[in-house]
Amino acid sequence: MTQALLVINAGSSSIKFALYTVAGGAPTPCYRGQADGLGASIGSLQIKDDQGKRLLHEELPESDGHDEALDRALSWLEERLEGHDLIGAGHRVVHGGPEFSHPVRITDDILERLDGFCELAPLHQPHNLRAIHAVARVRPHLPQVACFDTAVHRQQPRVAQRFALPRQYENKGVLRYGFHGLSYEYIASVLPDHDRQAAEGRTIVAHLGNGASMCALHGGQSVASTMGFTALDGLPMGQRCGNIDPGVILYLLQNEGMNAAEIEDLLYRRSGLLGLSGISADMRQLLESDRREAAEAVEYYVYRAVREVGSLTAALGGLDALVFTAGIGENAAPVRAAICEQLGWLGITLDREANAHNAGRITTTDSRIPAYIIPTNEELMIARHTLRTLDPA
Amino acid sequence: MTQALLVINAGSSSIKFALYTVAGGAPTPCYRGQADGLGASIGSLQIKDDQGKRLLHEELPESDGHDEALDRALSWLEERLEGHDLIGAGHRVVHGGPEFSHPVRITDDILERLDGFCELAPLHQPHNLRAIHAVARVRPHLPQVACFDTAVHRQQPRVAQRFALPRQYENKGVLRYGFHGLSYEYIASVLPDHDRQAAEGRTIVAHLGNGASMCALHGGQSVASTMGFTALDGLPMGQRCGNIDPGVILYLLQNEGMNAAEIEDLLYRRSGLLGLSGISADMRQLLESDRREAAEAVEYYVYRAVREVGSLTAALGGLDALVFTAGIGENAAPVRAAICEQLGWLGITLDREANAHNAGRITTTDSRIPAYIIPTNEELMIARHTLRTLDPA
Repeated sequence: MTQALLVINAGSSSIKFALYTVAGGAPTPCYRGQADGLGASIGSLQIKDDQGKRLLHEELPESDGHDEALDRALSWLEERLEGHDLIGAGHRVVHGGPEFSHPVRITDDILERLDGFCELAPLHQPHNLRAIHAVARVRPHLPQVACFDTAVHRQQPRVAQRFALPRQYENKGVLRYGFHGLSYEYIASVLPDHDRQAAEGRTIVAHLGNGASMCALHGGQSVASTMGFTALDGLPMGQRCGNIDPGVILYLLQNEGMNAAEIEDLLYRRSGLLGLSGISADMRQLLESDRREAAEAVEYYVYRAVREVGSLTAALGGLDALVFTAGIGENAAPVRAAICEQLGWLGITLDREANAHNAGRITTTDSRIPAYIIPTNEELMIARHTLRTLDPA
Repeated sequence: MTQALLVINAGSSSIKFALYTVAGGAPTPCYRGQADGLGASIGSLQIKDDQGKRLLHEELPESDGHDEALDRALSWLEERLEGHDLIGAGHRVVHGGPEFSHPVRITDDILERLDGFCELAPLHQPHNLRAIHAVARVRPHLPQVACFDTAVHRQQPRVAQRFALPRQYENKGVLRYGFHGLSYEYIASVLPDHDRQAAEGRTIVAHLGNGASMCALHGGQSVASTMGFTALDGLPMGQRCGNIDPGVILYLLQNEGMNAAEIEDLLYRRSGLLGLSGISADMRQLLESDRREAAEAVEYYVYRAVREVGSLTAALGGLDALVFTAGIGENAAPVRAAICEQLGWLGITLDREANAHNAGRITTTDSRIPAYIIPTNEELMIARHTLRTLDPA
């Protein structure tokens, strides 16, 4: 009997999931679905096959939704296992704190420890854990695995993980964790197929999605990342501020009379592209807009990305390739073009036509450093991790 | 009658001052002094001539001290003007906010506006202004000029000055100001004597003192700086944290139960080299120590400096020269060596012997990018600004 496993990526009001079967040791997607509107008065559940053909679309009863949605999805999928053995569920968990440098099978004890990291990733961690609790309730015997976005960064040199704070804070776990690790692991795993030399050498991966960060990979290992203790730091994002002087927070506390919750709301939800433009957090809308504020927000996004490429190149001691991935990285040609054009000094020469077509390699053949678009696949990475964790043979 | 002017750099418990006379349009130092222990039970006043020969050393009466110390120093200097006309006093003022992009003659109105920036530079601004008030009391008719450490950075491209916050905060003056501007102006003014090509091109100046920042100069104009809204951001310093995830501040508020004043104390006075090492804020002591914690603090300092050189090189679109200045930059050969060695990828090849002797040029003759040590002289820059502001002819 061959194996099957469920991959779950849970957000605030939706849960994405996919059923993978294992063929020749490699997970292959069969069904993919999404439960939306959880906690709202009308929710919905959709499931499609691997070709994108819709097989199920139904309303969910009014309820908090997570348990019911996952129970319903699991029941539907279990009926179609066709002799496959469902060995477990793997979850994306944003924050693994200082201790988790690998995926881990979930126990009550581990779940409690992961709960302690909710404040460090308030947009994601609570929802990730909620789905784990829900699966535990509706399928108490199904093994579950947590796959962390922070795990790969734990192998960074210690100097790259620290802040210049008294040591007691480091002991409490105040470190630069870095995030989007599942995406970086996936890119590192396929990079040899695109550029063997870069895969063995020094590559910066720009994961530019709604959340955004960059990672410096040396021989496939993370040596530095733009995100820090939380998912706020580094690059500006749709709604998050990215790099900001800590003195700004003191100013907001002392001079603007804001409290911590108000500042958290400002920095996580009202800043970034949305804050700068006053128009939208969505790069597509900003690129389509002809308003000056939209152009300025895009200009800022590009400028900070260019600065961070410089900083990470310094961490790597040089650069062999630049990779764009995730929503903006894979699709926003004008953003990639602007970033590459400001990196001419580094040896990057854009191929405008290839870039406009979102082609794999977007630099000219004589570009000293190549740049690539490589679609990320965090879901597949979770499937691989889950399989490896539950069936190490 | 030739002109004379007083330069004042006031700190929390000491005031440094110098008397310059003007010969052929150029200010030349005559006397230099320091009042120490202000506010303590025993203060002291010293004055030396330009050769460093001590001419006065006396105790100051127990008192708050600023008025008395400046009155006494001025009286002593006025007796020695020998026909020179004391045209005014120029002060170093750390923060000029969004509006002051040039030195300015002080009025009551301006003093009030400068007072509004005290929270943005709590270690310096209040003391700078206190000395201005003291001079106004003891010599009400003496013209005074404020020379700002932020002024040169106001010419940076707007994208380099912004944060990704809603626009209302920018309108309130929440911008990346950058500091150490008087030092950068001085270096820019003498750079043509060292390297005309770099002076016209792209230079990073690393002002590594007790406070530390870097500035990217293009044709002598500041285009980016590592310091932000306050003097906390960017490079780690003796006691200041430098770059830190804003999420750390939220964590300290929400999880450690710290208030804004406690966090300010932590980030301004207990972090940086002191926090990391637990030994000292003084680079000399750390370099002499054989303890692991000292070595780790120095390693962190170097690592962050290297990252920032990468980031500023990206802002400049390449690099023509690197300049070290200020206490650590001019004297700490091992720190310069480690920074330069990690910048080999950029084309910097250290000349170990020249570096060990704190020589002017510390890279080999075949280094693609030269690195220099250029002693800074903020005092002379203030003298020049004061003269130009009070006597524009």
